[in-house]
Amino acid sequence: MRPSGRAPDELRPITITRHYTKHAEGSVLVEFGDTKVICTASVEERVPPFLRNAGRGWVTAEYSMLPRATTSRGGREAARGRQGGRTLEIQRLIGRSLRACVDTEALGERTVTLDCDVIQADGGTRTASITGAYVALRDAVAWLRGRKLLRRDPLHGYLASVSVGIYQGVPVLDLDYAEDCNAETDMNVVMNDQGAFIEVQGTAEGHAFRREELDSMLDLARSGIADLIEHQKAALAAD
Amino acid sequence: MRPSGRAPDELRPITITRHYTKHAEGSVLVEFGDTKVICTASVEERVPPFLRNAGRGWVTAEYSMLPRATTSRGGREAARGRQGGRTLEIQRLIGRSLRACVDTEALGERTVTLDCDVIQADGGTRTASITGAYVALRDAVAWLRGRKLLRRDPLHGYLASVSVGIYQGVPVLDLDYAEDCNAETDMNVVMNDQGAFIEVQGTAEGHAFRREELDSMLDLARSGIADLIEHQKAALAAD
Amino acid sequence: MRPSGRAPDELRPITITRHYTKHAEGSVLVEFGDTKVICTASVEERVPPFLRNAGRGWVTAEYSMLPRATTSRGGREAARGRQGGRTLEIQRLIGRSLRACVDTEALGERTVTLDCDVIQADGGTRTASITGAYVALRDAVAWLRGRKLLRRDPLHGYLASVSVGIYQGVPVLDLDYAEDCNAETDMNVVMNDQGAFIEVQGTAEGHAFRREELDSMLDLARSGIADLIEHQKAALAAD
Amino acid sequence: MRPSGRAPDELRPITITRHYTKHAEGSVLVEFGDTKVICTASVEERVPPFLRNAGRGWVTAEYSMLPRATTSRGGREAARGRQGGRTLEIQRLIGRSLRACVDTEALGERTVTLDCDVIQADGGTRTASITGAYVALRDAVAWLRGRKLLRRDPLHGYLASVSVGIYQGVPVLDLDYAEDCNAETDMNVVMNDQGAFIEVQGTAEGHAFRREELDSMLDLARSGIADLIEHQKAALAAD
Amino acid sequence: MRPSGRAPDELRPITITRHYTKHAEGSVLVEFGDTKVICTASVEERVPPFLRNAGRGWVTAEYSMLPRATTSRGGREAARGRQGGRTLEIQRLIGRSLRACVDTEALGERTVTLDCDVIQADGGTRTASITGAYVALRDAVAWLRGRKLLRRDPLHGYLASVSVGIYQGVPVLDLDYAEDCNAETDMNVVMNDQGAFIEVQGTAEGHAFRREELDSMLDLARSGIADLIEHQKAALAAD
Amino acid sequence: MRPSGRAPDELRPITITRHYTKHAEGSVLVEFGDTKVICTASVEERVPPFLRNAGRGWVTAEYSMLPRATTSRGGREAARGRQGGRTLEIQRLIGRSLRACVDTEALGERTVTLDCDVIQADGGTRTASITGAYVALRDAVAWLRGRKLLRRDPLHGYLASVSVGIYQGVPVLDLDYAEDCNAETDMNVVMNDQGAFIEVQGTAEGHAFRREELDSMLDLARSGIADLIEHQKAALAAD
Repeated sequence: MRPSGRAPDELRPITITRHYTKHAEGSVLVEFGDTKVICTASVEERVPPFLRNAGRGWVTAEYSMLPRATTSRGGREAARGRQGGRTLEIQRLIGRSLRACVDTEALGERTVTLDCDVIQADGGTRTASITGAYVALRDAVAWLRGRKLLRRDPLHGYLASVSVGIYQGVPVLDLDYAEDCNAETDMNVVMNDQGAFIEVQGTAEGHAFRREELDSMLDLARSGIADLIEHQKAALAAD
Repeated sequence: MRPSGRAPDELRPITITRHYTKHAEGSVLVEFGDTKVICTASVEERVPPFLRNAGRGWVTAEYSMLPRATTSRGGREAARGRQGGRTLEIQRLIGRSLRACVDTEALGERTVTLDCDVIQADGGTRTASITGAYVALRDAVAWLRGRKLLRRDPLHGYLASVSVGIYQGVPVLDLDYAEDCNAETDMNVVMNDQGAFIEVQGTAEGHAFRREELDSMLDLARSGIADLIEHQKAALAAD
Repeated sequence: MRPSGRAPDELRPITITRHYTKHAEGSVLVEFGDTKVICTASVEERVPPFLRNAGRGWVTAEYSMLPRATTSRGGREAARGRQGGRTLEIQRLIGRSLRACVDTEALGERTVTLDCDVIQADGGTRTASITGAYVALRDAVAWLRGRKLLRRDPLHGYLASVSVGIYQGVPVLDLDYAEDCNAETDMNVVMNDQGAFIEVQGTAEGHAFRREELDSMLDLARSGIADLIEHQKAALAAD
Repeated sequence: MRPSGRAPDELRPITITRHYTKHAEGSVLVEFGDTKVICTASVEERVPPFLRNAGRGWVTAEYSMLPRATTSRGGREAARGRQGGRTLEIQRLIGRSLRACVDTEALGERTVTLDCDVIQADGGTRTASITGAYVALRDAVAWLRGRKLLRRDPLHGYLASVSVGIYQGVPVLDLDYAEDCNAETDMNVVMNDQGAFIEVQGTAEGHAFRREELDSMLDLARSGIADLIEHQKAALAAD
Repeated sequence: MRPSGRAPDELRPITITRHYTKHAEGSVLVEFGDTKVICTASVEERVPPFLRNAGRGWVTAEYSMLPRATTSRGGREAARGRQGGRTLEIQRLIGRSLRACVDTEALGERTVTLDCDVIQADGGTRTASITGAYVALRDAVAWLRGRKLLRRDPLHGYLASVSVGIYQGVPVLDLDYAEDCNAETDMNVVMNDQGAFIEVQGTAEGHAFRREELDSMLDLARSGIADLIEHQKAALAAD
Repeated sequence: MRPSGRAPDELRPITITRHYTKHAEGSVLVEFGDTKVICTASVEERVPPFLRNAGRGWVTAEYSMLPRATTSRGGREAARGRQGGRTLEIQRLIGRSLRACVDTEALGERTVTLDCDVIQADGGTRTASITGAYVALRDAVAWLRGRKLLRRDPLHGYLASVSVGIYQGVPVLDLDYAEDCNAETDMNVVMNDQGAFIEVQGTAEGHAFRREELDSMLDLARSGIADLIEHQKAALAAD
């Protein structure tokens, strides 16, 4: 029934490649099927103005798509001179989600910036970004700990993200582009390894969705995110 | 327990004043307690480029706060030369929500722009904007119908929006600024008069929230939105 | 003869509502007939770079129109990414005029920003803005004095502003939009309560104007401004 | 008494050099003492969008100062990415003034752009710009007439501009920078060869100015502008 | 002697991976050692305004570095709101170079945009970009020919690019970042498969360079470019 | 054979006028035939952020063309809100070239900005700018030395720039606009008075150029630059 032939509760093949580029403190290529995102974590020994002398650090994100990550070429935001609303909305979501698992006092007065650059898009770029950026952040924290720059671990728990939706009347997990275009409802969920919610963002596309539809989507998301966290743990175990 | 003394499931005083300014096809001052937003609906006989010759209309929104709508003065976005991420995120939400109740073919090849300008902010500006903009949109549609420019009603059903959150461990409805700053979870919900969801956006602020917390917040939202739709109907009945 | 039926030397109904919004140190809704402007005064304990350590304060203004303050919707300047020439010209005029009655040394090293946001336009938005902003500024100064932050009053005298013009060959006071569009000459005048000039800006629209026309317009302006200052005093007396 | 030793009613040496650069349809170097402005008139066979198919032409102006036209280097507006309020205000004044002597129907559906680029500033750059741009405009009109592109002369009459002010209590004509900085009042006047006003813009700098001061300044302006028009006529006669 | 241990006339390991991403008509990952650039060619059936109805096509380029392609994180140009001078200079060079081997009439009225996105930088990003973009362009042309959209081949010959410089007094080929920082002279050369020059850009960094130094650098460039063209041919032969 | 009737190795008439405007520390009008550029050198007692406390100064350049410097009017970059790629490329070249003859330690912690504003363009504006800016820089250095602000001369040697190209198969020196439009190759060369290269930038326009063509162009450039340096010396000798 799904264009990809997947079962409703089946994730796409997930790949998490660490140390993908050489300069960043954390660098991950995350693949959710044909969606591929380079997530790098950069550590800088400064904080934004509103945190100066507050004894706390900051975690933030930037998101972008290469112009030809998509089926037709999208204009380059740097050439247009402004980031679009979709970009800003996504990078705010990524940053907010990751901060939910960070003890910024333990991080110290420094900033970790997660750059999520989509090199190929096939649906779910924001959920792949969050899932990959978490691993890059963890590597950056390990890099700081390796240099004895942290007194305690600033990360509490794992988190990952997945999309769920209603496609042809059926709740499905991890929508690819073919499904995303035709979904009646689209929901992005971020959860931690306790099964609690960090973010829930659901939008009716075709028709308003009912409470029981919401409930089945959340059930699918919980199970998908648990799987994704296993993928993260496996990638982090290998070294 | 709530700073305002309200019961957990109690809305702030709601006022919807139609015909607030004289030039717009729909013009509403909406007040959720001390949050006051001017929502105007402007009809223009043109559509954005991506809809040219598509036989459909468009509904979009713009959102702004007067610089001193807040406790300290915020810089004017026009002077800074760009709209911030929060602004873009909110106006995308308002536009998307309202389109969910519009039959764009019935609207014809024209655009209705909902301008939501916050003149005083005390929490919940986006939910007040959606609730007020719906009424302004309905007045603009009535204006079009009065001029015999529509063959059928492009609006299906009512919609309104409210925020819910967890404040000091208790789920509460329609947070004001004092609660919003200290809420552990903040969720904005848009629903129609069938009790179905248009948008659900929940964010963990203090700690990740559990499924049962989500459930109680959604229950509160459903009841609050039903009340808000009654306010809309009462305002629209008076003429 | 005038579209509104007013006598040539007759102001529109003038309303000055203080404490219009709750956050600002001064907040005024000023109405010149159907022209309605929210003028807020915001006190900030900093000065612009060119005044650092100069022992003086600063008074400045920003001006904007809500997109649908006018008969057809104007594009939002924040969305376009720049303030237009008309906006900049008007806000420079407002700021310069108000500084003419301020002793910036007495104000101390702080800035008062006057935001003039037009919610409904019917001609004369800049003169209404100056007239209302003066009252907001005065309330902000009173707020500072109430907190014992000033050693002496930084305001010397009152000031107000009105437009005058030649409409169908006759000098008229306080043009509304219908007159403004068709006026042969349009002049904005700012005066103090001594009857001396702060600003005079006259523009020939239809034909160049003669010295005697200029003289009659200035006579009208003087009398109109004297009336406006009475309105300001009455509004400030009430508390 | 004046820093330059001039009499109160004495202009600086005025030079108007036509055909200053070779590409423009009109090109003038105008000098008011040490203030030097290149004014070019460019004819383009198109009109702005709001005049399309209106059977009328348009005259507009742009103004700029070379970064080191002034005693200290000013930032380049192109590098900052926006024109300042002063620039926009001045170029609006120049364009509006010149349009006051143009019959845009006689001009036909074309645009004449007056570029006023200040290469050296010593006070009065806007009045020199208007005075020089008029001559460039006249040359551009002659160029159009030479090509038989106009059926009748679109220019009615001459116009020029000068500044007047109160310096050390005395009304003076054509202020240079040393006077401008210390003037109590500064007024720019644009008049035609009938002695009628196109623009009057007066600003109190030190103290509000009285009606009789205004009157003496306007007397000085009338006589100075009559002289400037003689300079224009002499320059245009030479060929 | 070279930090990398290479001989003065030795290229870094060169890898050219075609079909790197799935949406673009041409997609290449090019690696010059640790410098890695994704070059995509996008075909669009439109031309820029200056070529409308000219019966010719256009080839253009855009260049960007991911923020963490470099040792320290660079600000994202989209976030800053403008592309820097270096970016514009490089993308103008890439576009100009590639157009030198394209018969734009044979291409027809369409545009090929070469996006060169650096995912890891270690010196020579512009020469790698040109070398990789050529291959992507060739694949895009093959795609057009496969769809019978071209009557003849618009590409004449091959072209590639390499950097040369003087490092510690010795002319060297294909500088990596360690050499680039310390080179006395840095030159980028673009040549075709006839050994003729498309672009030569040499800059003295430490001291002005003499004619004989220029000559030896050009000799090195010719031999390096011949090798790079062999790499291109090998990559294009494989399918 | 050349449109101007010049011999292939003949420069246009060169004029270098010092002290052209009165405010700048160095101010030169340079003319290469009908190409006229005002080059000013401005000394400021600050350095860019990346040089703070480095004990060194900075030399930088900005370049612009007046809108009607060219045969048809070009849009003003300040009005468009960004400098174009060509402008940025040229001003980077001018700055880089001049820094090649400056000992920034000897200059001390200050910045010299060279503004090159083209008032009339007829080909070769960048080479004229470099040649004129060198003289302005030298005057600014003399001004600093006159004030005893420098301990030693920060300038080592002279430098100038000229364009060379292949026009109708023949290498020619100092192309004017008529040649530039039709040249098969266009090369800009910056050299010092030792005959060594500072910059070489050659671009194939019509066909790729061969090594022997490159060689003859460089020979022409060397001789032309030697002449230009004589012009600089003569201008500097006069005082």
